[in-house]
Amino acid sequence: MRAPLGQAFLAIKLVGILALSTAAARAADPLPSWNDGKAKQSIIQFVAKVTTEGTADSVPPAERIAVFDNDGTLWAEQPMYFQFAFALDRVKALAPQHPEWKDKEPFASLLRGDVKGALAGGEPAIVQIVMATHAGMTTEEFDTIVRNWAASARHPKTGRLYTQMVYQPMLELLAYLRANGFKTFIVSGGGIEFMRPWTEKVYGIPPEQVVGSSIRTRLETRDGKPVLVRLPEIDFIDDKEGKPVGIHQYIGRRPIAAFGNSDGDLQMLQWTAAGSGERFCLYVHHTDAEREWAYDRQSSIGRLDKGLDEAKAQGWTVVSMKDDWNRIFPSGK
Amino acid sequence: MRAPLGQAFLAIKLVGILALSTAAARAADPLPSWNDGKAKQSIIQFVAKVTTEGTADSVPPAERIAVFDNDGTLWAEQPMYFQFAFALDRVKALAPQHPEWKDKEPFASLLRGDVKGALAGGEPAIVQIVMATHAGMTTEEFDTIVRNWAASARHPKTGRLYTQMVYQPMLELLAYLRANGFKTFIVSGGGIEFMRPWTEKVYGIPPEQVVGSSIRTRLETRDGKPVLVRLPEIDFIDDKEGKPVGIHQYIGRRPIAAFGNSDGDLQMLQWTAAGSGERFCLYVHHTDAEREWAYDRQSSIGRLDKGLDEAKAQGWTVVSMKDDWNRIFPSGK
Repeated sequence: MRAPLGQAFLAIKLVGILALSTAAARAADPLPSWNDGKAKQSIIQFVAKVTTEGTADSVPPAERIAVFDNDGTLWAEQPMYFQFAFALDRVKALAPQHPEWKDKEPFASLLRGDVKGALAGGEPAIVQIVMATHAGMTTEEFDTIVRNWAASARHPKTGRLYTQMVYQPMLELLAYLRANGFKTFIVSGGGIEFMRPWTEKVYGIPPEQVVGSSIRTRLETRDGKPVLVRLPEIDFIDDKEGKPVGIHQYIGRRPIAAFGNSDGDLQMLQWTAAGSGERFCLYVHHTDAEREWAYDRQSSIGRLDKGLDEAKAQGWTVVSMKDDWNRIFPSGK
Repeated sequence: MRAPLGQAFLAIKLVGILALSTAAARAADPLPSWNDGKAKQSIIQFVAKVTTEGTADSVPPAERIAVFDNDGTLWAEQPMYFQFAFALDRVKALAPQHPEWKDKEPFASLLRGDVKGALAGGEPAIVQIVMATHAGMTTEEFDTIVRNWAASARHPKTGRLYTQMVYQPMLELLAYLRANGFKTFIVSGGGIEFMRPWTEKVYGIPPEQVVGSSIRTRLETRDGKPVLVRLPEIDFIDDKEGKPVGIHQYIGRRPIAAFGNSDGDLQMLQWTAAGSGERFCLYVHHTDAEREWAYDRQSSIGRLDKGLDEAKAQGWTVVSMKDDWNRIFPSGK
């Protein structure tokens, strides 16, 4: 029985070696949720270029600024922007304190569950909903409201926490860039104070590296302590032409890499691309109706139309979620 | 001759040991320009407290946010705010393109060298001077203008570059805090884009950690490239009540340490102090008429009046430049 036992040992040994080398290969791949292909290659090539010292393309770490849109780029945005879902939840929570809402649009429609009816009022209706739910409290109170919501509210389709509806490949990309000396920023049309309470935990991006839309605040004294009160006045809209403005205002230098998914990100990508030296621009294209959603030129949420043309013209990387990502969300397929 | 030679060797050896231990002591002192005393002690004790892990006072590195005023706290501000000296230099440089300034206040007075006369027009005059010199160009053009000025303009009293009129003890403090895991930010009433071009080199503070007053910018296309144009409209005044607003807007979390020198910093220090857990607030008090300037309650520049009372009432650290600093500027005494 010696020989078979020996063979068995040898087989075990070989399996072990194979398992080890697969693990090593996996450990060596910083982007395991990205299928091998042009998109993944373009990222790795860009990072290698700017981080190889002593070459013409090399960029010092302090200037390795990467900016990411949030809605549709780092987390999902269907069937509605998650911040709008937050606002709707807040309208319901606040309704008992506002009996007048029963007869007042857009709140009356919302409280009947008729989102379309509420939005018939257009932008003024949206502003009313945002201000009623995002202003009137201190910054600390709003922080708590957002934290509680993020810890409990669930997506209508998947039943997951919204913060679990982030894209696993993008989490890997963020970590990969940071491991290569990049400083990663969010530059989103979403509310800056709606994102900051959870971006550090979810994306590893601290509050001071989050740029977004904002309402004004004012310093007041309450119970002998200074507080900042959130006012129902728009301060800054960090979308489209606003994105380069926000980047300049908050970051103060031009990114060398930019990641977006919609026409709202186009100016940010163009601003990034217009700098001198090696640059990287990437669009996430929502092409996976099965595992996520498929939409682009015709969508009212996250429309990607002009951006798709510009990406082609400029040779930017376009990620097909269906083809380039072997996994979409951290849990599940 | 043996014994004397032996003694000489011994003496050389002793001198060597002494020199070494002095060097070691110097290397061990992170704040060599600070005299031993209450101010220095309070800084070191605070840093030890928040960085000693496993204690109630311990603060995780991500939350070790320290904010510094600039004018009068990190660099001098007499006989006028350096940014105002920049504006005056720009008025002179731009005068040939503005023949109408010869008969138009406040420019006419300025061009005659009569600063007092120009400032007789009050705030509207100052705004006119600022807008004429800080707006109307792209952000890249303004960056170049500031860099060139910082590399060449000299202080009227000392003849040094303005960027050499920074406080050596504060440079040591910045480095000491960063070595202890702090993230250091500037929060200044000065213009954010006036500071960013040189703060990284001079203070080790990158552009994205600079908060200041700002004018609006707008995205335009010039020669087929996107540019940001600086508009003659105030966006944000980062002074007094504005400092907590700016801290919240740009940094998104409350600092645990704040450093200022005037009543314009009072709300920033109060905002910092009002957080829970260990906090540190420090005022630089200009008490050295010989090596720097001496001014406080009566000064129109950098007035420190209410702040001095509040510091006493709250037990904040007050640095006397004359007594607590053995060196003021990096070069010279």
